[in-house]
Amino acid sequence: MSNFELHSRLRDDCHQLGRLSACHLLLHRNSAVPWFILVPETDVIELFELESSLRQRVSRECDAVARFLRSEMGARKTNVAAIGNLAPQLHIHVVGRSPDDPCWPAPVWGNLPHGGGYSNERLAQLQSRLVSSLDLRAEPGAGE
Amino acid sequence: MSNFELHSRLRDDCHQLGRLSACHLLLHRNSAVPWFILVPETDVIELFELESSLRQRVSRECDAVARFLRSEMGARKTNVAAIGNLAPQLHIHVVGRSPDDPCWPAPVWGNLPHGGGYSNERLAQLQSRLVSSLDLRAEPGAGE
Repeated sequence: MSNFELHSRLRDDCHQLGRLSACHLLLHRNSAVPWFILVPETDVIELFELESSLRQRVSRECDAVARFLRSEMGARKTNVAAIGNLAPQLHIHVVGRSPDDPCWPAPVWGNLPHGGGYSNERLAQLQSRLVSSLDLRAEPGAGE
Repeated sequence: MSNFELHSRLRDDCHQLGRLSACHLLLHRNSAVPWFILVPETDVIELFELESSLRQRVSRECDAVARFLRSEMGARKTNVAAIGNLAPQLHIHVVGRSPDDPCWPAPVWGNLPHGGGYSNERLAQLQSRLVSSLDLRAEPGAGE
């Protein structure tokens, strides 16, 4: 898909960390919980509409990001969801949760208090760990 | 897994429609939106912890249920999520959404108004269509 463009809502809400094999990897700007969003390059809006091999690659990348949340970012539970009622571009939330986070046990959507953001240093550190662990191709300027 | 037991919260909230190949298929009792829940027989609590072939079967069954929501139940969008903050037994929500449903565009969790329920006749009709379309092995007495 040569003319891929990220939905404006996702662009506004997230840092663009880079590319995995199948998906663009975003990080929600609200750092109250560690919240990744994976965006495959596709025009379809439902997971079930993805061609079978891409569907599997997307699932594997979601699993890898969830594993990263547990092993590297202290998540006790992960929440994985494809919703897309507001931003119809297919995207999958992979969120790290813990009993001491500010909206536990509620889901994050609509319940997350306004939180702090990530420093450029923290973003660079995260990108570097994702490059090592998940073979991320890092996007320059993720802090923008 | 011979000693499978459904978490009490899922049992209280849902009708047990029957078994697909990998998952038990539940239907949320609140009929305000069509809301299925798939429960694989496993002790792990995260999708990424499932053994690879079971992970794929679970995804395929979620996709099939989402397709059913669109083709047979009028859903314009599906929301697919593994959350599990309250009921730690691994379960995947597959929810049919439409712009005229009572909590659109918000996610259903925590936002769905108390709705009506399903009649036994409607449950039997749904089961029958799921048997035909998804090869469901129907559970008797789903109305309980």
